[in-house]
Amino acid sequence: MNLKNLLREIEDFPEEGILFKDITPILKDEDGFNEVIERFLDEFAELEFDYIAAIEARGFLLGPVLSREFACGFIPIRKSGKLPADKVSVTYELEYGESELEMHTDSLEAGDKVLLIDDLLATGGTSLAAIELIEKLEAEVIAAGYLIELTDLPGRSNLQDYNIFSIMKE
Amino acid sequence: MNLKNLLREIEDFPEEGILFKDITPILKDEDGFNEVIERFLDEFAELEFDYIAAIEARGFLLGPVLSREFACGFIPIRKSGKLPADKVSVTYELEYGESELEMHTDSLEAGDKVLLIDDLLATGGTSLAAIELIEKLEAEVIAAGYLIELTDLPGRSNLQDYNIFSIMKE
Repeated sequence: MNLKNLLREIEDFPEEGILFKDITPILKDEDGFNEVIERFLDEFAELEFDYIAAIEARGFLLGPVLSREFACGFIPIRKSGKLPADKVSVTYELEYGESELEMHTDSLEAGDKVLLIDDLLATGGTSLAAIELIEKLEAEVIAAGYLIELTDLPGRSNLQDYNIFSIMKE
Repeated sequence: MNLKNLLREIEDFPEEGILFKDITPILKDEDGFNEVIERFLDEFAELEFDYIAAIEARGFLLGPVLSREFACGFIPIRKSGKLPADKVSVTYELEYGESELEMHTDSLEAGDKVLLIDDLLATGGTSLAAIELIEKLEAEVIAAGYLIELTDLPGRSNLQDYNIFSIMKE
């Protein structure tokens, strides 16, 4: 199946000049959604890891499904102020401003191997912040998987020290 | 397995006097997470529905996993300003203020049957807003499922016209 047929492009969202890639038609389509999950399962079948972590909010649509399939626990990485217990934080620059990500301090232990999942690889800024959080807890990101990679942006080169996989290159 | 052992209670979060129910230790525990999913699968096995819808952000941790298991599409219900295409909106009152939920206008068609999933049933305000959105699109909520129900709050009575299921009653 061609996932590209299910990806919707919206001009000038969230700001003028941005061509937003809307994955909601993929999620709505049972076959499209399954194709996404199967592609991730194939790619990471040989990888050994302890946990899957994903970034709020769209990463949450994919990460827990893969946790269930790979029979491992799931760790949420959230925006500032959402997690209730002791946490580590990283502030980072976005394409449209600044943001902060957090993880619970007890979400990982030293040496844990983590597969990071998100919907979109753009400049890689959000992923680098997530990786910094995971590394603050002395855990290791052994791979990062994305539904969409924007190949005009330097996400892949900014993440060159990591094992990167994307399903759709746009 | 006793999920209660994995539920963490945090005092005075997000505001003083609130005892927050933190589900992240359940998600981190492979067996705990599987137990949650199996309980939902058992409860809704006989139900006929076209889509699962869930509410940003914690509902996203559960809804898509169930969509994959039940072999149906997934529809996100998001906070204001997050969805890029034509949408319907509902403003509603929260325990701590006011908020707005949105769905894409083309996410459901008239007559579609929807299973609504969220992590927490408190007063039911968020669920009623989500149901109002789904009904604006002339679709039907045939059941709503929650990981946690706060039984001291009137969520169940506020949703008395609907088929409600919760895994943990706190």
